[in-house]
Amino acid sequence: MNDVVGALDGIKVLDFSRVFAGPAAAQIFGDLGADVIKIEAPVGGDEARHLGLTEGTDPRLGVSASYLALNRNKRSIALDLQTPAGRDVACRLIEKSDVLLHNFRPGAMTKWRMDYPAMSARNPRLVYGEFFAYGPSGPLRDFGANDLALQAHSGLMSLTGEPDRPPVRVGSAIIDLHGSLAMVSAVLAALLSRERTGKGQRVEASLLLSSAHLVNYFYSEYWIDGVVRKAMGTANHLSVPNQVFPTADGNVVIIAPSDAMWDRCARALDAELLDRPEYKTVRDRQTRRAEVIEAISSVTRRLPSHEIVARLGAVKVNVAKLNNIGEAAEHEQLQAAGGVASFEFGGETVKAVSSPFRLEGTPTQVYRAPPQLDEHRDEVLADFGYAGDEIANLAANGAFGAPAPARKTGTKA
Amino acid sequence: MNDVVGALDGIKVLDFSRVFAGPAAAQIFGDLGADVIKIEAPVGGDEARHLGLTEGTDPRLGVSASYLALNRNKRSIALDLQTPAGRDVACRLIEKSDVLLHNFRPGAMTKWRMDYPAMSARNPRLVYGEFFAYGPSGPLRDFGANDLALQAHSGLMSLTGEPDRPPVRVGSAIIDLHGSLAMVSAVLAALLSRERTGKGQRVEASLLLSSAHLVNYFYSEYWIDGVVRKAMGTANHLSVPNQVFPTADGNVVIIAPSDAMWDRCARALDAELLDRPEYKTVRDRQTRRAEVIEAISSVTRRLPSHEIVARLGAVKVNVAKLNNIGEAAEHEQLQAAGGVASFEFGGETVKAVSSPFRLEGTPTQVYRAPPQLDEHRDEVLADFGYAGDEIANLAANGAFGAPAPARKTGTKA
Repeated sequence: MNDVVGALDGIKVLDFSRVFAGPAAAQIFGDLGADVIKIEAPVGGDEARHLGLTEGTDPRLGVSASYLALNRNKRSIALDLQTPAGRDVACRLIEKSDVLLHNFRPGAMTKWRMDYPAMSARNPRLVYGEFFAYGPSGPLRDFGANDLALQAHSGLMSLTGEPDRPPVRVGSAIIDLHGSLAMVSAVLAALLSRERTGKGQRVEASLLLSSAHLVNYFYSEYWIDGVVRKAMGTANHLSVPNQVFPTADGNVVIIAPSDAMWDRCARALDAELLDRPEYKTVRDRQTRRAEVIEAISSVTRRLPSHEIVARLGAVKVNVAKLNNIGEAAEHEQLQAAGGVASFEFGGETVKAVSSPFRLEGTPTQVYRAPPQLDEHRDEVLADFGYAGDEIANLAANGAFGAPAPARKTGTKA
Repeated sequence: MNDVVGALDGIKVLDFSRVFAGPAAAQIFGDLGADVIKIEAPVGGDEARHLGLTEGTDPRLGVSASYLALNRNKRSIALDLQTPAGRDVACRLIEKSDVLLHNFRPGAMTKWRMDYPAMSARNPRLVYGEFFAYGPSGPLRDFGANDLALQAHSGLMSLTGEPDRPPVRVGSAIIDLHGSLAMVSAVLAALLSRERTGKGQRVEASLLLSSAHLVNYFYSEYWIDGVVRKAMGTANHLSVPNQVFPTADGNVVIIAPSDAMWDRCARALDAELLDRPEYKTVRDRQTRRAEVIEAISSVTRRLPSHEIVARLGAVKVNVAKLNNIGEAAEHEQLQAAGGVASFEFGGETVKAVSSPFRLEGTPTQVYRAPPQLDEHRDEVLADFGYAGDEIANLAANGAFGAPAPARKTGTKA
C-alpha cells in the first residue's frame, strides 16, 4: 500500500497505544516506511483526537492539533478489545505483524490473553513494545502518571524555574516525546537482533526511564558528590555568560563558555565596557557573576535582538534569539533543515514537524495523512486475509464496536 | 573484547563526537553491545571530561559527573586529526567499522577528506552519522549553538516559566539528550536498511530537529489555528487540576483531566469542599480555574505529600510528589525499573542512569567503565591490524598528539 522504499519498508507495526508517546513512536516508524496500523477504541478512538477540544471550540479540521502532529503515515481500524471477537481480530493481526506497541496499564494485556508470552507463542518473530508509566514492577508500578507527574517525580521540575520562586513545568510534554524515541530505539535494536537470531523479543520504555535519562548527569553528580542542583532561571552553574539577556525588543541567549569566546563576545558587544582584565577568565566571571551579567545586560538592552545575533554570530559566539512558538515555527531554518512535513487533510494543506533525523539513502516521507477513526477497516482486514462474510460476522459480534445503533450491552469480557 | 551478546553485538562504532548528544548516543550503542571506540583530541580529550570542573574543584574521581554519566562501554584512543598521520589512522579505522558519529562543524570533515563521499567510497557499508546545531544548510548553518540556544530558538523557553515573568530554561540539556536518541534511531534504521541493501548511508540529527520534535504539537497548533501558547507556570491549557499544589511539607502534582477522575479526586481529598456541583465538568473547572485551584490548595496545604499521594494513588488519580534530584535518584522505583547502571571507576562503585529502555531478550549491560583518555590505543590499533613498528612510526608523525619524549607509553593491554 505504499511504494516508498524507506528504511522500514515491509515492516508491519500494530499500534494499540493512545495519546502521546506511543503514537509519536509509531509515526516515526511510519515516516521510515513501515506499514503502521493504528488500533483504536470504537467510541472516540485515540483520546488525542479530542485533546484540548471542548464543545464549541472544535477547530475547523475536527481533530486536535496534537493528533495531527503525531498520526500521519498510519491506517486506522477500530477494534473493541473488550469483546472476544475484537481480540480475535487483534490476535490474527499480531500473528502476521513485526511490531506491536501498547501503553495499557500493567496487567491489561495479560487479562486479555494478549501478553508477550501468549503472542510470541503465535508469532516468535514479534517485537512486543510496552510503554509504562513507572515500569512493570516496583512500588509505583500501579500508579497512573503522565508527563507532568514524571517532571515532578524525576526532579526535572526542581531544576526548572527562577531561583527562590516556585518550580515550573517544562512547557511541552518532553518526557513523553523522549520516551517515544526510546521506544523507537529499542524496537529497532530488537529488529536488528532479529536479523541474526530470527527471534523477536519484548521491549519496554517508560516515562520513568525517559525522565531519568533526561536528567542523567544530575543523578550522576548526586550519586558521586552528593550535590543537589536547583533551578537557576535561565543560567546554569557551568559558565558566565550562559543565559538570557534582555534586548531593546525582546531577549537573546548568549553562551561564551571559554575565555577565547568571551574575548570575542566582549569585543563584539562593547569592548570598552566588557573587555576588561577582571572579567578575563571563567573563574573571574563566575566570581563576579552578578556584575558581569549586569554589564552585559546594560549593553544588550540598547540593541535590537537581530543586531546582537548578527554581531555575535559573525565572531562565532553562540547566540540565539528567544523566539515565541510562531516565530520558531515560521523560521526559514526549520524548512531548510528538513523539519517540516506536510499533507492534505480536510481539504487543506497541513504542516507538521518531521521526524527528528534525516536518512539520506532512505529518506522519510509522508505518504498518508492522519486517518479518520476506523477509516481503513476493510482495507486492513483484506490485507490480513479476511473475507467479506467473516468481516460481517465479526461485526455482528461486536469486534468493531456496537454492531447496532441501539447497542449498549456486553462491555466486559 | 566483550562476551556480552547484545542486540548490536559485532557492530563497530567510531565516535568522534564530543560533550553531550554524540557521546550519549554512542553510549546507548555500547549498552546494546556494540564495540564503541571514542576518538578524542590528544590534549584534554572530550571537553566533557572537565565540564564544570575548574582548578581546585576537581572531584576526587578526576573527571566530571557528566563524563561518567555518558561514557561507559567505550574504549578511547587519542588521534590528532590535524595531522595527516592522525587522519590516516582514522580512515583505516573507518574502513573497517559499521558506524561513524561526529559533531564537527559543517565543512570540517570535508576539509579533512573524511566526509561521507570519501569514506563511503572506502567503506560502502558505513553508516555515517552527523550531528549539527541547525543542520548542514540554511541561513543558520554556520551558527554555533548549544542546548540553551535551541531552547531559546525553538520556542520551548517561551512555553516555560511563570505567567507574566521572565522565561526560564529547562534545567537539563534535554535537547542534546533527545537529539542523542534521534541519532540512535536514525543509525539503527540505517543498519536495518543495510541488512537488505548491503549499503550504508549518511544520516543526520541536529539540535534544531530535536528541539522542533520536542514542541511539535505547539507548532502544529500554530500552523493550523495561529495559536501562540505561552508559559503557564506548572499549569496548562488542557484541564484543571493539572499542576503543582503546595502541601504541608513540599509539593505534589495532581492531574485529573476527566470528570470521573475529578470526582474520585474531590472525594478522596475533601468531599465537602471539593465534590460540588459547580465543579463537576471540565468546562466548569476551566471557567472557575482560580477558584478550583484555591479550593484544592486549601486542602493540600494541610496534608503531608505522602498522605496526598497515598490517598489519590489509591483511587487511581494521577499524582506525584515533587522530588529534588537526590530524592529522585534515590527512589527505589528507579532501581526496580532497571534505571540504574553501575561500574567500578577510580576504586569506587559509580552509579549512572541506564539507557532509557529495556530489551528482555538482549538486555543492555555494563561491561566497561568510562575510559581514561587514550587508554586503549594499543589494544584498538591491534584490533585493526596495526603492527608495533607501524604504531611507533605513526606516533613519530604526531598521529596520537605531539610526539613528546616524555610520553607515558603502553598503559593498557
